Order: sequence, then structure tokens, then C-alpha cells
Amino acid sequence: MLLLDIGNTNVKYFDGHRVWRERVEAFQLPDAPFYYICVNPRVEEKLAASAYGQDLKAWFDFPTRYSGLGVDRIAACYTVEEGVVVDAGSAITVDLMRGGVHRGGFIMPGLSSAKESFANISSKLICDPHREVDLTQLPQNTADALIYATINPIVLMIEEVRGDLPLIFTGGDAKRLLPFFKDARFRENLVFEGMQKAIKEKRNAC
Amino acid sequence: MLLLDIGNTNVKYFDGHRVWRERVEAFQLPDAPFYYICVNPRVEEKLAASAYGQDLKAWFDFPTRYSGLGVDRIAACYTVEEGVVVDAGSAITVDLMRGGVHRGGFIMPGLSSAKESFANISSKLICDPHREVDLTQLPQNTADALIYATINPIVLMIEEVRGDLPLIFTGGDAKRLLPFFKDARFRENLVFEGMQKAIKEKRNAC
Repeated sequence: MLLLDIGNTNVKYFDGHRVWRERVEAFQLPDAPFYYICVNPRVEEKLAASAYGQDLKAWFDFPTRYSGLGVDRIAACYTVEEGVVVDAGSAITVDLMRGGVHRGGFIMPGLSSAKESFANISSKLICDPHREVDLTQLPQNTADALIYATINPIVLMIEEVRGDLPLIFTGGDAKRLLPFFKDARFRENLVFEGMQKAIKEKRNAC
Repeated sequence: MLLLDIGNTNVKYFDGHRVWRERVEAFQLPDAPFYYICVNPRVEEKLAASAYGQDLKAWFDFPTRYSGLGVDRIAACYTVEEGVVVDAGSAITVDLMRGGVHRGGFIMPGLSSAKESFANISSKLICDPHREVDLTQLPQNTADALIYATINPIVLMIEEVRGDLPLIFTGGDAKRLLPFFKDARFRENLVFEGMQKAIKEKRNAC
């Protein structure tokens, strides 16, 4: 069973054992059956023409008041009963789950977006997203100021929502953010686990 | 006395009475004496060729441990003894002044940068920076989620630094941010006031 998680930057594949990714520009339709979720409007057309692809979007039984919640966020939350789910990719999505119900969430620009934003404002504002940063001290130079202003807003926004709930990270930039939180958990395949759960439920219902 | 505050997006003019601005791309050297500060590397060359322009950069007596502090931030802080100074333009700079001494600060992407970042991530992420937003509720749709994630990080970052200190806003987006803070003050000409103070000190010293 091949699963595809198609985002704005990358396509992630999971064959039940191994995960791999490619740039979305290089995406080719698989020539064998596959299940997918897709948030990328440019790829959706391509997928509609596929004889093998099964869109999982309608398979998630996911009550929420949030209108227009991306299917990637639904999948990431789908195996979480209680907690704050952070998917840190080209965007950073943050979603609150309580009692198995989605209670709202938000989207921030991802780490590479922040770097780009600074570069677009001025050629002097070169932010290294991997630079070490001490969030307990006000910055005393430009390089520190930029990384501080990249990481700290994300930390403050997540801590504000979190309260006493478990914190679960996934996505390509998760490991960069993890050290700034106490008791946060990294679940690399969180989205695929959600997709697997939806498929299993569908099979059981048939 | 004509003062020019040359930023990354706009040039602001002050003739002692009136303030006006133009896009930096349209900037022409004035053909009469003027004082200026400039953080835009592309304009600096042009200014170097001017017979009339006096750069104020070296005129500020501004002790700080912060290396590479932009002269616009110095000017904005120059008349502030105690407080957090926020200049909300294409970048949002935040600087802490205590006992007349600069204690550090940081730079965030401005409101229009956040809008651009979202649009670059996905055509579905259209953020209206003027949309009303309730920061006490987790968003329940994409439009609310984007404006929440634009405004709240700025609010949290500034509140964290502020403590009990006065909060002083300037810059083109100041009025958009002001309602989210208690007892914040708007000083439209804060940068020009700093420039005027530096000129006065120089004259008194001569």
C-alpha cells in the first residue's frame, strides 16, 4: 500500500516501511494503486487524471467547527486524542485536539519563509535558521536578532495554546524546533499514521 | 531644515512642519541642503554623490552593546529614556531603552511581509492584514487563522520584552498594532525627533 502526502513543497511517500520525498515539481503519477492526500492546487489536476490514485479526503471522520481545514492537518491530528499538533514544514500548522475533537488552530510561515522575508526586506538581513539562539537574552547583533525573531514567535505562539497538553511535532523542521519545548514528542510519520487509520476505518466499515 | 529618513521601502521627508513620503524607487536627490539617515544600501551610493546631503549617522551619541544597530533604530530610540520602541514598517524593529541606554532588540518581518510569505507558500493562503481579529479565541477558519498568526506573534514578542515599561510606536503600520496593547503611545515623528536632537547636540557642541 503506497501512501502519498502531497504538500506545497514536497511529496512524501510511505510504502509501509520506508519514507522518502521528492520536490513537488518533479512529481510523476505512480503507475500502481496509491492513496493520497493533497493540499497543492497545482497537483490536484494531475491527480484527477490518475486511474490509480484514491483521494482520502472524504474518508476522515473528523468533526470540527473549523471551516476549510487542510486535509494534511486533519491527517496529522487524526490519531491524537489530546494534544497540540505542530506540523513544521513550508508552513507551520498548529492544531488543538481535546477529547478527540479539533478545537481550532492556526498557520504560521515556516522557518525558510522567515529567512526569505528578511532577505526581501533588505540585503543586510541575512538570517541563518540553523544559528544557535538564546531566547532568554535580548539580541545584541543583527544575526542574533533575526534568528531570535524567527524562533521565539513560534515558541510563544505554541506555548500559549499548549497549556498542560501534550505537544506533538512532525514535519521537516520539527527537529529544529523541538529543543525549545519541554516534553515535546517527535512523530515523524504522524500524517501517514492518520492516513492509515482512515483507510483501516473505511475497510472495517465495508 | 529638510530631514530625510530613507528606509527600504519609503523615503520620509520632514521640513519642520509637514511630513511626506515617496517610494524609494522614485527618490531624487534634493537640490538644497538636507540632513539624512539611510539604511538602504542601494540609495547610499546615490547619497554619496550629493553635494547637499549631510549623513547624521556619526552624530548620534548612542552607547549600546548591540553591534550593527541600524541608524533608523538609533534615531527612533534617541529621545526615549525608558521604554520599548517599536517601529512598524516593512520590518518591525523592537528596541529596549533603560536609563537612557539601549539594552538590545530584534527585527521581525512587517505586516506586508507576512502577507507575502503566506501567498508564496500557497495560493490558498490569502491574508488580509486589515481583517478584524480576536486574539483570545483559537481561529476556526483559514482567513482568521492567517491574521491571528500575523498579529499575535508580534503582540507576544513585544509584551515579553515590555514588562512594566512604556511602549512607544512609530512607523506606517503602528496604528494597526496599537489597539492590541494597553497604554501604548503613538509618536508619528519619533525618528525625526531623534534626528533633530542629534543636530541640536552637534550645534551646541560646536
